[in-house]
Amino acid sequence: MSSNEGAKWLPRKDVIIIGSGWAGSTLATSLDETKHSITVISPETTTPYTPLLASAACGLYEFNLVETPIRHTNKKIKFVKAEVEGIDCKAKTVRCIPAFDDLSVKDFVLQYDIVVIAPGSTNNTFNTPGVSEHAVFLRNAKDAMKIASRIQDCFEKASISGLTDAQKHSLLHFVIVGAGPTGVEVSSELSDLFSSSYASLYPHLKPYVSIAVHDVANQVLSGFDTKPQDYAIGSFTKRNVEVLTGSHIERVEKNCLYTKENGKISAGLVIWATGNKSTALVDSLPVKKTPRNPRILTDSFLRVYTPSSELVDGAYAIGDAADVEDARLPTTAEVECQKAKYLAKALNGKIDREFRYQQAAIVAYLGQNDGVVSGKKDYSGPQAWIAWRSKNFLWTRTWRQKVLIVIGWALDLVTGRSIAPR
Amino acid sequence: MSSNEGAKWLPRKDVIIIGSGWAGSTLATSLDETKHSITVISPETTTPYTPLLASAACGLYEFNLVETPIRHTNKKIKFVKAEVEGIDCKAKTVRCIPAFDDLSVKDFVLQYDIVVIAPGSTNNTFNTPGVSEHAVFLRNAKDAMKIASRIQDCFEKASISGLTDAQKHSLLHFVIVGAGPTGVEVSSELSDLFSSSYASLYPHLKPYVSIAVHDVANQVLSGFDTKPQDYAIGSFTKRNVEVLTGSHIERVEKNCLYTKENGKISAGLVIWATGNKSTALVDSLPVKKTPRNPRILTDSFLRVYTPSSELVDGAYAIGDAADVEDARLPTTAEVECQKAKYLAKALNGKIDREFRYQQAAIVAYLGQNDGVVSGKKDYSGPQAWIAWRSKNFLWTRTWRQKVLIVIGWALDLVTGRSIAPR
Repeated sequence: MSSNEGAKWLPRKDVIIIGSGWAGSTLATSLDETKHSITVISPETTTPYTPLLASAACGLYEFNLVETPIRHTNKKIKFVKAEVEGIDCKAKTVRCIPAFDDLSVKDFVLQYDIVVIAPGSTNNTFNTPGVSEHAVFLRNAKDAMKIASRIQDCFEKASISGLTDAQKHSLLHFVIVGAGPTGVEVSSELSDLFSSSYASLYPHLKPYVSIAVHDVANQVLSGFDTKPQDYAIGSFTKRNVEVLTGSHIERVEKNCLYTKENGKISAGLVIWATGNKSTALVDSLPVKKTPRNPRILTDSFLRVYTPSSELVDGAYAIGDAADVEDARLPTTAEVECQKAKYLAKALNGKIDREFRYQQAAIVAYLGQNDGVVSGKKDYSGPQAWIAWRSKNFLWTRTWRQKVLIVIGWALDLVTGRSIAPR
Repeated sequence: MSSNEGAKWLPRKDVIIIGSGWAGSTLATSLDETKHSITVISPETTTPYTPLLASAACGLYEFNLVETPIRHTNKKIKFVKAEVEGIDCKAKTVRCIPAFDDLSVKDFVLQYDIVVIAPGSTNNTFNTPGVSEHAVFLRNAKDAMKIASRIQDCFEKASISGLTDAQKHSLLHFVIVGAGPTGVEVSSELSDLFSSSYASLYPHLKPYVSIAVHDVANQVLSGFDTKPQDYAIGSFTKRNVEVLTGSHIERVEKNCLYTKENGKISAGLVIWATGNKSTALVDSLPVKKTPRNPRILTDSFLRVYTPSSELVDGAYAIGDAADVEDARLPTTAEVECQKAKYLAKALNGKIDREFRYQQAAIVAYLGQNDGVVSGKKDYSGPQAWIAWRSKNFLWTRTWRQKVLIVIGWALDLVTGRSIAPR
């Protein structure tokens, strides 16, 4: 009998995965179910396809195509809808709080053999007053639906009889805070939406619509090379998207925001896309972390250290919340996926080498048929758009969704975009 | 020059349609745009495909397939998102209140040559305490999404560690109030969902799930013949759906309801489907109406009367909110559509005869591959299901949606139902 066949008869290890993002869900679906009993703990029941969210918010995809549920009919993954409050690395337990406030059970404890910490990150508001209440984020399908619905509301409000021109201009001014990839993608998609479907649906409002991207930095696409940065600026100019670099947001209120440079700016919608910060779990965990905006530091086998640099037994960290010591990897879906797939192979007993990242292109979509790609090589224009769209296609996991996305694209060509936001 | 060609050069008449349901939207899309300037006023931007809502709530259709937006890129229909508060039939104006409470404009007045009153109806709670707060309705796509999301929440809550068997039974008891077509459809779809997808996704919860249909009447499908009634009862028995006829609901509270006959009944979700009542607009309009739960009485040309039976100039009423004097027509989508199409032809100058209803089959879906049809002839079983599904197909208007529905059915067969409720 070979050692592989023998492995099937060993007791299965209890693997707890904290987080249902790219990292957690990729690991959960890649682990060998004959060797592991897998439990995913997360307050979210679905994994969002982050790179498609901006397109979905602007009606290019159905909302159900930009997320996939953790519970699969053909996978034996247990799921617990809860927030992990703490980990006892000695007792090998996690303490959870249900994601529902009307249950008699207020907290509970689960035992593990292996814990994988992948809670991701949360929105960074930089403590700017009013952001959580009055701005919208773009992290999951619910956010995308909210943005689609708020955009439609702005156009419907501006269609009501008796409003002044100034009021229409205010309602139809859309502000994106943050000129990173998400901000650039959202503003490009918004511009495309307003010049296509919405221009036909609300022809009476076309003269009142405007888009502005604000960033505290002095450039857009900070972290990219100058070539894509220049290309993005040129594309914004072509699309009449106003770019305000070096803009300091002081606070956000209902239907307006205040900047240090320009004072009060009225806006129908403020989309906040300034980046990520660590979760409460990562902030409180007594493990080795990076100093500011902490991420968990792992060794090159993705294992977690104590603060005094001893390895913690059976504890791993992947995703946005983790970084490999001395590696300085970007927080992208591609890095997350590569780490998750590596860890699955390692836990399945298929490899015993260290994790090595294979750099691929980072893509930011700059409107229909036009984009920039940075990474292995720089290139711009239609090729980048094709790379971006092919990537979307590869990233989408189930056959059902792949088929519907292709059909969706074909139907977009023939019948125009789908625009029934809820 | 023929009289038809001459008509194009007459000034267009301002037609105001109050309501965006089946009646209002069918009329709006059927009116001749060269003769009429069309404005639809409604607090809802979409028309729901009412007969598909139960299926959508249970994951058989995508939510965006069960509604269609009033604003079309290829139709010149003006839309105003507002509630009509009153009509001045002498001045020929309607007074509107915007469907947004944060606008400086609090009300406004629009002028008409022709007004068509089609505001539909609202949920009838029979003044039962707690229904609006704690039960859910099923009138539009938003309701269907809410039900899908609440069902999933119940199963996720019941999956949390540490709950007692009694608590799981309570969370997974689903109550439908009202055994009319909607109640019968929802309970059949729920039963199918729980025995298919949800049985695979939550195998640990199967023993705890139960469904009950309550009705104050002594029979299900009141208004149908005894044959479909008996068939429905048999089908419920086969599906283990408990039927409680003669059940008087006293009040609904969070996670429970109270009946006169059985006292407190714990439930994860209460779906309220007891029928319709008139809107505030119809209640307040000084026109000729039916006495109780008022509907507007029209002549056989669908024209509105004053209370003293004089015709009101340029005012028509269609849809659930209206009835033809001495005709006693049922409030179904088919009647609504026939009236709307008749009125469009009449206003377009294509016919001058009276409205006559062509009775068609009334269908209630009793679970996959099984149903009852009442109307011209009674038949049961798979043929009824085919009639029902073909009807869905015919009722769905745009080509995009038709194609996606067919593909959706095919994919359901191959990959299982789509179950990512938000």
